[in-house]
Amino acid sequence: MELSINTMWTLLAAVLVFWMQAGFAMVETGFTRAKNAGNIIMKNLMDFALGSIIFWILGFGLMFGKDIAGFIGAPNFFIQGDLSYLNLGVSKDAYIFFQTVFCATAATIVSGAMAERTKFSSYCIYSVVISAVIYPVVGHWIWGGGWLQNLGFHDFAGSTVVHSLGGWCAIIGAAILGPRIGKYTKEGKSNAFPGHSLTLGALGVFILWMGWFGFNPGSTLSLTGDNLNIASRVFITTNLAASFAAATTMMITWIKYKKPDISMTLNAVLAGLVAITAGCDVVTPAGSAIIGIVSGFVVVFGIEFIDKVVKIDDPVGAIGVHCLNGVVGTIMVGLFAAYGDNLGLFYGGGFKSLGIQLLGIIVVAAWTIACALVLFKTLKATVGLRVSTEEEIRGLDLQEHGIDSAYADFQTTDTL
Amino acid sequence: MELSINTMWTLLAAVLVFWMQAGFAMVETGFTRAKNAGNIIMKNLMDFALGSIIFWILGFGLMFGKDIAGFIGAPNFFIQGDLSYLNLGVSKDAYIFFQTVFCATAATIVSGAMAERTKFSSYCIYSVVISAVIYPVVGHWIWGGGWLQNLGFHDFAGSTVVHSLGGWCAIIGAAILGPRIGKYTKEGKSNAFPGHSLTLGALGVFILWMGWFGFNPGSTLSLTGDNLNIASRVFITTNLAASFAAATTMMITWIKYKKPDISMTLNAVLAGLVAITAGCDVVTPAGSAIIGIVSGFVVVFGIEFIDKVVKIDDPVGAIGVHCLNGVVGTIMVGLFAAYGDNLGLFYGGGFKSLGIQLLGIIVVAAWTIACALVLFKTLKATVGLRVSTEEEIRGLDLQEHGIDSAYADFQTTDTL
Amino acid sequence: MELSINTMWTLLAAVLVFWMQAGFAMVETGFTRAKNAGNIIMKNLMDFALGSIIFWILGFGLMFGKDIAGFIGAPNFFIQGDLSYLNLGVSKDAYIFFQTVFCATAATIVSGAMAERTKFSSYCIYSVVISAVIYPVVGHWIWGGGWLQNLGFHDFAGSTVVHSLGGWCAIIGAAILGPRIGKYTKEGKSNAFPGHSLTLGALGVFILWMGWFGFNPGSTLSLTGDNLNIASRVFITTNLAASFAAATTMMITWIKYKKPDISMTLNAVLAGLVAITAGCDVVTPAGSAIIGIVSGFVVVFGIEFIDKVVKIDDPVGAIGVHCLNGVVGTIMVGLFAAYGDNLGLFYGGGFKSLGIQLLGIIVVAAWTIACALVLFKTLKATVGLRVSTEEEIRGLDLQEHGIDSAYADFQTTDTL
Repeated sequence: MELSINTMWTLLAAVLVFWMQAGFAMVETGFTRAKNAGNIIMKNLMDFALGSIIFWILGFGLMFGKDIAGFIGAPNFFIQGDLSYLNLGVSKDAYIFFQTVFCATAATIVSGAMAERTKFSSYCIYSVVISAVIYPVVGHWIWGGGWLQNLGFHDFAGSTVVHSLGGWCAIIGAAILGPRIGKYTKEGKSNAFPGHSLTLGALGVFILWMGWFGFNPGSTLSLTGDNLNIASRVFITTNLAASFAAATTMMITWIKYKKPDISMTLNAVLAGLVAITAGCDVVTPAGSAIIGIVSGFVVVFGIEFIDKVVKIDDPVGAIGVHCLNGVVGTIMVGLFAAYGDNLGLFYGGGFKSLGIQLLGIIVVAAWTIACALVLFKTLKATVGLRVSTEEEIRGLDLQEHGIDSAYADFQTTDTL
Repeated sequence: MELSINTMWTLLAAVLVFWMQAGFAMVETGFTRAKNAGNIIMKNLMDFALGSIIFWILGFGLMFGKDIAGFIGAPNFFIQGDLSYLNLGVSKDAYIFFQTVFCATAATIVSGAMAERTKFSSYCIYSVVISAVIYPVVGHWIWGGGWLQNLGFHDFAGSTVVHSLGGWCAIIGAAILGPRIGKYTKEGKSNAFPGHSLTLGALGVFILWMGWFGFNPGSTLSLTGDNLNIASRVFITTNLAASFAAATTMMITWIKYKKPDISMTLNAVLAGLVAITAGCDVVTPAGSAIIGIVSGFVVVFGIEFIDKVVKIDDPVGAIGVHCLNGVVGTIMVGLFAAYGDNLGLFYGGGFKSLGIQLLGIIVVAAWTIACALVLFKTLKATVGLRVSTEEEIRGLDLQEHGIDSAYADFQTTDTL
Repeated sequence: MELSINTMWTLLAAVLVFWMQAGFAMVETGFTRAKNAGNIIMKNLMDFALGSIIFWILGFGLMFGKDIAGFIGAPNFFIQGDLSYLNLGVSKDAYIFFQTVFCATAATIVSGAMAERTKFSSYCIYSVVISAVIYPVVGHWIWGGGWLQNLGFHDFAGSTVVHSLGGWCAIIGAAILGPRIGKYTKEGKSNAFPGHSLTLGALGVFILWMGWFGFNPGSTLSLTGDNLNIASRVFITTNLAASFAAATTMMITWIKYKKPDISMTLNAVLAGLVAITAGCDVVTPAGSAIIGIVSGFVVVFGIEFIDKVVKIDDPVGAIGVHCLNGVVGTIMVGLFAAYGDNLGLFYGGGFKSLGIQLLGIIVVAAWTIACALVLFKTLKATVGLRVSTEEEIRGLDLQEHGIDSAYADFQTTDTL
């Protein structure tokens, strides 16, 4: 019975995590221009399809294979080998499916930051590499029995493993790509390119919020014993962090711009969700409220900092949402963890946990940035990373996929 | 094991109820004009975020705190206190989460009726008040151990607690606001303002229909013992009521207007769902079919009555759907209840149950109308309830949120 | 406990299957023209509502009533009779609800192939007939204890029962209707009519993919004992088939048209899902990968064959997706079944299983085609099957439902 209950929990949570793919697709297409709508849809579709395939062939083994020196799992091609050493509390295939949909989430984050100018072929290659190697290695360190896990690094559902990893790739990719044509004036002023459908973008945020109720509480992989209360608590902390982040950002933009900003508040929901992901199982509701408030600040000032100071063109704000809040959320565990073995600084745990959290953030950043640099530089030098100027101006839907418009019956005005 | 099963049931049902927020957002934006699309999205997002916060801080305690004279629960700020007196069959946090997503549903109903002309700041304040006080008090009477519950009033999943309560607020709010500019001619003729996206509106209806499979059967909070059969039956009655309502309204509009009306039929689905909500656990499939048919009539003639006779401008028909059908559905329990302790009039229960149902409807209406009057009158006299004429004409997206259009790349034609 | 677990599994899977209705609605409306958007929505809504009603009144009995000579179940009007002979492992109502949402899926497939020119009244009648008789009879043969089931025909979740059945109806309906005005030139060249919203179409595909995780694994109706591992495996095979189909079609179109085609790749996901449905429980992950690859070919060349050679106008490619891949997927069981009593040809089972699969495909095709011919010919001769030329040109939304546009605030350009 216990096996059935835990397996059902894991499978249904995995379905919710799968559903996040639709959320990313809607957010990214809604927040960008109509002339690239089909291209973004296709990227989101294919990173999941290709990710599912390559994670089966290679990635799963590198992540959950028998540990080799704390660094990587032994390959287990096509997951043919025995998995009994994992001591799973759920069916083998439920575990594989849950991990597969998680993997695809990391890859999909990048498409938003690199939207509206990346070659489709390069995107497919990138997407395979992150799901085959970059993500599984970090996953092994933190969730697969690797060295960071043994050190006590705590990242319950992946603020670091999934979100900041995707975010670091996004920074490097977007930086190497360069900004979209017309994004920055000669004087360096940033122009806003409004998205073509705020309603689809908002739908995407609601989908992601829903999906996160699989992503975070499902990461218990169990709903029996202690996990019953942990998973239940995770619903509360996850929901409060998102709610407080939205309320905070609404207030900040109201004060700063005199009007509550819709797309920033939508991004704040995602920021709160990303930030609470690492510690959703070990913080109190009050802790989650504080984490939500902090992430509401981080997303507003972070996106602005990246856009106006660093001058990396990130069409949907993915770096501010996933990278910065992934980092901040991981640090928060070291401050606010109130349950479990490694209490946070504010709960009497001293600086130890905080130090380990910082170490984990740094090494994951180093690994991911190094991989991403090699990957994107190689792609740029070979197949090419960016579409031609003409292609970018006329839209990627036309030139990359041969369709005049994703909205054939509507008058659109979005060619530059 | 039983605790795990019931908790899983409750948590997953709560996820479906959360998902209804996306449904309301899509229905309300789809059925109104493009120039206000972003504003409506933002209202739907924030009533959930603010509702989650205030229900945690205050509302939950007033609803489920220790009973004070049958009228209200003792405050339990931030839900810090012990909840053992509730004798829950699920984990504490699962119960809190389920009740939180329910609460947010009541608040969101109003945004549709007050769409396209309400000040955003007033909406936020209103939204907090309903989730903090208006809803929890009624919730306490009927679900929290209060006087109506002790009297035998039956409202299984909230035709009255959630839907007619939201609907009464909507009537008062929309009446005090007044109609949108151009809605009624000098001669008092009503003009129709067609919605800007029937496809998004329809998607919203499908989302709500899906979410109702959490809202109604999830209200057992259990899937063991008798609740196994009750929850299963609720799926049948819920689905049949919605289906019969749709078929009925399609036929009525076909006869009345010579053509089957799409948006009215979509609203009929919601009407059927609202009407079956009170008695979904105690009626037979045949009873649910009759309730669905009745609600199909109520929604057509009710929306027309409110629009053309009462002349309250309700852009999405929320009053007809939620208030009228909430009332009708609650009465139906007194007629068609075939299971449980309080049989309906047609099943040998006499007039007793019917009388209690009517009493409950009246007192909830009185309480809600009184609160809403005070609230909206106060808002009108202080921060102001309605946007300026210019703002309304140019669209709330521009003036309230600083964006030119929620659909930047499309030619729109919706400024009056 | 076991009863609770299996019932929960079945109910939640049924919710996911219900959700597929929204997926079909979005796919079909997104891939057709804006002037017919409301009409398609209405068809998808009403086939579910009417299907739910008629399946309760009549269909369920014909499908699962006491067996009469292996051909049909004894009527059980309004499902009033005892069902103990079914020896259900779940609650009676959970079983009825699961079967109801399945039934509605078969009907909805046809609306895509007959889109943009079918009379709404005829569509409603057709939809009732398929849910009342055509589908239940086949369902009885294969799932209700009928002759094909006794012979060992294997169609786990309905490649034949649901998808090819819907597909055969679609072929006959679309052929009798004839092509849309302007679809074929005098010389017989096929014109493409691009869909009005690729983003809504893609959202529909994501919804369907999600819903299939209820459709396929939920068909175990149980998550205990052996079914625990079977259902878990089905997630893997279902997901891999869809992923491989998408990757395959992307590559084929890239080579064939020099650009990866978005809408064909979206259809490929559905093709892979349809094809794996019959054998998802008995093939290995490698087998599912091969089935996915095959379906990727079938959908591209199949849709092209039907469009350019057979010259049946199928606006959304429903025939290629559901009929051809339903047939192919059913055959694949005879080749790749690696578990269970009837091994496939490639797993040492000889030709026996393959022969039975072919027999089943043929008789279901014969029955469905015969019924569809009688049905559509009768409709054509009586109420009429097709709208007038003027109506078709101006759009079905205007003439069938009295609305100017499903997108009132947008400039559309889609009148021929």
